[in-house]
Amino acid sequence: MFEQVSIIGCGLIGSSVFRALKKNSLAKKVITFDNNKSVSEIIKKENLSDRTVSSPEEAVSNADLVLISTPLSSFESVLDSIKKHLKSGSILTDTNSVKKGADVIVKKMNLKNISWIPSHPVAGTEKSGPKTGSSDLFRGRWTILTPDSKIKDSDVKKISLFWESMGSKVKIMSAGDHDKILSITSHLPHVIAYNIVKTVMSNDEKMKKDFIRYSAGGLRDFTRIAASDPTMWKDIFIDNSDLIIDGINKFSKNLDQFKKAITEKDSKRLLKIFEESSEFREAIIKAGQDTDKPDFGRK
Amino acid sequence: MFEQVSIIGCGLIGSSVFRALKKNSLAKKVITFDNNKSVSEIIKKENLSDRTVSSPEEAVSNADLVLISTPLSSFESVLDSIKKHLKSGSILTDTNSVKKGADVIVKKMNLKNISWIPSHPVAGTEKSGPKTGSSDLFRGRWTILTPDSKIKDSDVKKISLFWESMGSKVKIMSAGDHDKILSITSHLPHVIAYNIVKTVMSNDEKMKKDFIRYSAGGLRDFTRIAASDPTMWKDIFIDNSDLIIDGINKFSKNLDQFKKAITEKDSKRLLKIFEESSEFREAIIKAGQDTDKPDFGRK
Repeated sequence: MFEQVSIIGCGLIGSSVFRALKKNSLAKKVITFDNNKSVSEIIKKENLSDRTVSSPEEAVSNADLVLISTPLSSFESVLDSIKKHLKSGSILTDTNSVKKGADVIVKKMNLKNISWIPSHPVAGTEKSGPKTGSSDLFRGRWTILTPDSKIKDSDVKKISLFWESMGSKVKIMSAGDHDKILSITSHLPHVIAYNIVKTVMSNDEKMKKDFIRYSAGGLRDFTRIAASDPTMWKDIFIDNSDLIIDGINKFSKNLDQFKKAITEKDSKRLLKIFEESSEFREAIIKAGQDTDKPDFGRK
Repeated sequence: MFEQVSIIGCGLIGSSVFRALKKNSLAKKVITFDNNKSVSEIIKKENLSDRTVSSPEEAVSNADLVLISTPLSSFESVLDSIKKHLKSGSILTDTNSVKKGADVIVKKMNLKNISWIPSHPVAGTEKSGPKTGSSDLFRGRWTILTPDSKIKDSDVKKISLFWESMGSKVKIMSAGDHDKILSITSHLPHVIAYNIVKTVMSNDEKMKKDFIRYSAGGLRDFTRIAASDPTMWKDIFIDNSDLIIDGINKFSKNLDQFKKAITEKDSKRLLKIFEESSEFREAIIKAGQDTDKPDFGRK
């Protein structure tokens, strides 16, 4: 499909992409770059890409598709390095979890004859780094593309097929809609998970020990979500701050009402909240986003 | 160990107990009662206990150990029915998630020559009902006992061994300590999970569809926790309301500080929160309460 795909940033997502490309023979040549030397060494040693290069410029010069999979805080400096070396007519994409910020940075670069088609594969685990990637990471998961309307249809089709070939389902929408949806489905749950762990930790050492010991009753699952990559999440919270703050405000308003129902021991109101939650859960299972299998705790 | 164990209430927990007892031959006779006829029929049909009786009185009259595993809102009426029929010298236990409330109810009954030893197996799934039980539910999980100091040591040992024989680890503490610890490790996470689902649902239908579709980024895991049994959780929130409200207040205070860090785009502060979370996560894994295996989403 593509002659040469170059991947800059080889963490969980980047390394899952090149694993999937190699496994399914989806590109003739896969070139990788990571500014962390120990990451590059792992890739070389385990023979995960066709060539590991020592600069982003070198990585992109012959690429038909360039995929940048660094934290957003490194995105601008990567683009600065490569902007003069991109091949005319090539496609540029990323994997950032917030689309408006990345878009502003790329547009500032004023790239000529490059199709900028932002991607967000909504997939991942709480792990980070090149050893944690999997060729199956995108299978059955959505990838959201947010290209401008002036981008060539044929290029959008190419990048759609690229993700679909790795097992992903593809949806095209505006960057604004993407950021709104993800602020609720992903960013707000992460704020909440971090915050509950923070609340638990503001207790004395004896209490903390007990909280750890009896965490199987619910807390455990929040700590997993709150174990995700710190730099990535710091960038997301800063980059999508307005929409995340909106989400937090709505959450707090609901929490006040919930607190009122608990204080007043209002059975009816509480049961109503729980029943609505079950309905939403059923819809998520029906949509294939989770299974109905009970979770006894991972062993 | 026990000649006859009688179980009143045969949902997830009750049915897991009799499954474990039968599988490991831990009681000569297991008698069950559930006030829901369709539940009793399932137990009879699948031959899960030695005898299914039609009243709680009948269940307890010859029992050496009586285990009540109903929602707390039915606990008092069950006790009222059985109090005159309990065998002298027998042990009475329960599986409620809040210990002070159950204790108040039992003490009102003024039972003579009965060892009341409250139990809370900290185990479960988001499922409820007799079909969802498992003989392995308690394996590797903690059971907390909160007996009064005047209860005979030999009886406390008997009930400890009872849970240990089903694979559980046993810890004895006061009802007050139990309720404080669980308010944070279990009750608060459930409040938060229900509340995030509620927040998501207060959007229009089109948005909700998108939230369901892209829920894999974090939201999905909260909906699982929020799918737990409504009646049980209504009772828990009402019975442990003071401590849960304390937890909510601390959570809200932290959330306000977190919001401030996001609004001010304070990278340093955000990174500090995330790093503390990772440390707590590591402690939970080290304590064997979860595995370090990445979660790619259940299939």
